[in-house]
Amino acid sequence: MKRVIGVDVGGTGIKLGAVRVDGAPDLVADRVIHGHASLPVEEVLGKVEAEIRRLLQTAGWDAPDGIGVGSAGLVRSQDGVVVTSPNLPRWSDAPIGSRLQERLGVPVRVDNDVNAFALAEWRWGAGKGTDHVVFLTVGTGIGGAVITGGTLIRGKDGFAGEPGHATLVLGGISCPCGNEGCAERYVGNQGIVQAARRHPGFGEDARLKDADPLTPKTLFEAATAGSAVAATVLAEAGRALGGLLVTLVNLMNPERIVIGGGVARAGDYLLGPARDHLARRSLVARQAPVLVVPAALGEHAGILGAAAVFLDESLHGAP
Amino acid sequence: MKRVIGVDVGGTGIKLGAVRVDGAPDLVADRVIHGHASLPVEEVLGKVEAEIRRLLQTAGWDAPDGIGVGSAGLVRSQDGVVVTSPNLPRWSDAPIGSRLQERLGVPVRVDNDVNAFALAEWRWGAGKGTDHVVFLTVGTGIGGAVITGGTLIRGKDGFAGEPGHATLVLGGISCPCGNEGCAERYVGNQGIVQAARRHPGFGEDARLKDADPLTPKTLFEAATAGSAVAATVLAEAGRALGGLLVTLVNLMNPERIVIGGGVARAGDYLLGPARDHLARRSLVARQAPVLVVPAALGEHAGILGAAAVFLDESLHGAP
Repeated sequence: MKRVIGVDVGGTGIKLGAVRVDGAPDLVADRVIHGHASLPVEEVLGKVEAEIRRLLQTAGWDAPDGIGVGSAGLVRSQDGVVVTSPNLPRWSDAPIGSRLQERLGVPVRVDNDVNAFALAEWRWGAGKGTDHVVFLTVGTGIGGAVITGGTLIRGKDGFAGEPGHATLVLGGISCPCGNEGCAERYVGNQGIVQAARRHPGFGEDARLKDADPLTPKTLFEAATAGSAVAATVLAEAGRALGGLLVTLVNLMNPERIVIGGGVARAGDYLLGPARDHLARRSLVARQAPVLVVPAALGEHAGILGAAAVFLDESLHGAP
Repeated sequence: MKRVIGVDVGGTGIKLGAVRVDGAPDLVADRVIHGHASLPVEEVLGKVEAEIRRLLQTAGWDAPDGIGVGSAGLVRSQDGVVVTSPNLPRWSDAPIGSRLQERLGVPVRVDNDVNAFALAEWRWGAGKGTDHVVFLTVGTGIGGAVITGGTLIRGKDGFAGEPGHATLVLGGISCPCGNEGCAERYVGNQGIVQAARRHPGFGEDARLKDADPLTPKTLFEAATAGSAVAATVLAEAGRALGGLLVTLVNLMNPERIVIGGGVARAGDYLLGPARDHLARRSLVARQAPVLVVPAALGEHAGILGAAAVFLDESLHGAP
């Protein structure tokens, strides 16, 4: 049995939880810090330390076995440094791991939020039971992580896993990353909304043209309520997602693909066409069928992901 | 020091060599079998056994440490079975590994030819010295293999590594694999030749329109002799290759990319634009520059690749 503190550093808040892990994870207590984005790093770490001490008290633990941190942005997990984070403009080359370790006197491991998501879904969720699995989060962007042969692919500098910026349409829509035709231009929030606005039937569909704001969620609701335009736009995005899945499956030969994130909650409007595209168009998937399943961990996935970062043995050996 | 027999099973012949490995590989003796494609499997294996015994005599070895086999087609390397091979229509589910092992009484390991290429270039050639490297062979098709964290990615069933069938142009040119817009439709032999024929200047360029047959090699020669059409077509293919490299680098964060195969011999007509595209368009390559280099092992790469299959520890442990 392990006692782990998970710290999920997001844009709108830092979520912290005390997680008792004995096979399955049990969230014993949790807390949230708001308004951290504009504060200096040390001040934020002070708040994190204080909340962790409160959590330990609530949980009745003297000390945890360790602390896992999942953070948005570019994270150098070897030494626990947040290199840059879109949510935390002041966290530039911030040595979060070593600073928290000094403050709390227990081992700390840090990874990016998508790796954290993947490690938790692999250990406890929809990726459990296979050593070959691709994880995607589809929302504003597309995040990704690949576990192959039981190990998370990190690459030379820990920057591996950017399927959102795979070239899906050579010479296609420009992406702020500098590429053209990136997958997330066609499958992410903004790409889906723009495709809806470009659809010839958009102006005649009151549910869509009067929606304020128009989001993928509005489109799912409209599709459920019978909007053919919304259903078409989502199916088109689903096929684009399928095109990316073909690339990933032909490269990786995974047994399963786990999809999380806001857009993925659209369920079968998006995943149906994506699954169909993959099954028909991937030579590897025809030889070795791949299950495409939604993420399973739900509301506390961020905290559980952070806890899974501490428990991951691929980078640091057994904790 | 290891004594290894390498067996390279190709379409036009089976090349065999006695390779002494002491750091660098030394090809002590080699032989070729022709006319094998139409023979029954056991008859081919009988010829392979006889040629191996001759090699041992020439090399003055009593017995080798083991035998490595590299074969085109779909190979199940866990148990040394050639599942299907385009060059060997009669090798369907052929247990080459166990049959050769019975005949010669030494350990045999079998893998596909692209994995063999990658393992040899990694051990002795252009991929030496890094644990994060992507290998591509660009010719009729695009083959690929990825070594990450010092291990070759095989995937659940050993089918990983088909970058030629990554979706590069969603909804693009149909591919016999069932997908549309596969990378090899734009970067492989046939794609390049078709792009040349479609070029508006093709009919006015005598070096091209009278070429029989028109091949990527003809195009390289024409470009070298000053044909602007040929140079443009090759640059376009190079940019498409660059689009695929962006996908691979953004997913894998490798330190190096090694490119072999016939088309790759075009050198900078193709690799120049590919490198340029990668450097400008990959967010990971901008953070962590990637060297794109040609393969280094030359004429005997097939035999050395087969020998490297025997020496690979990722699948079977140390030999």
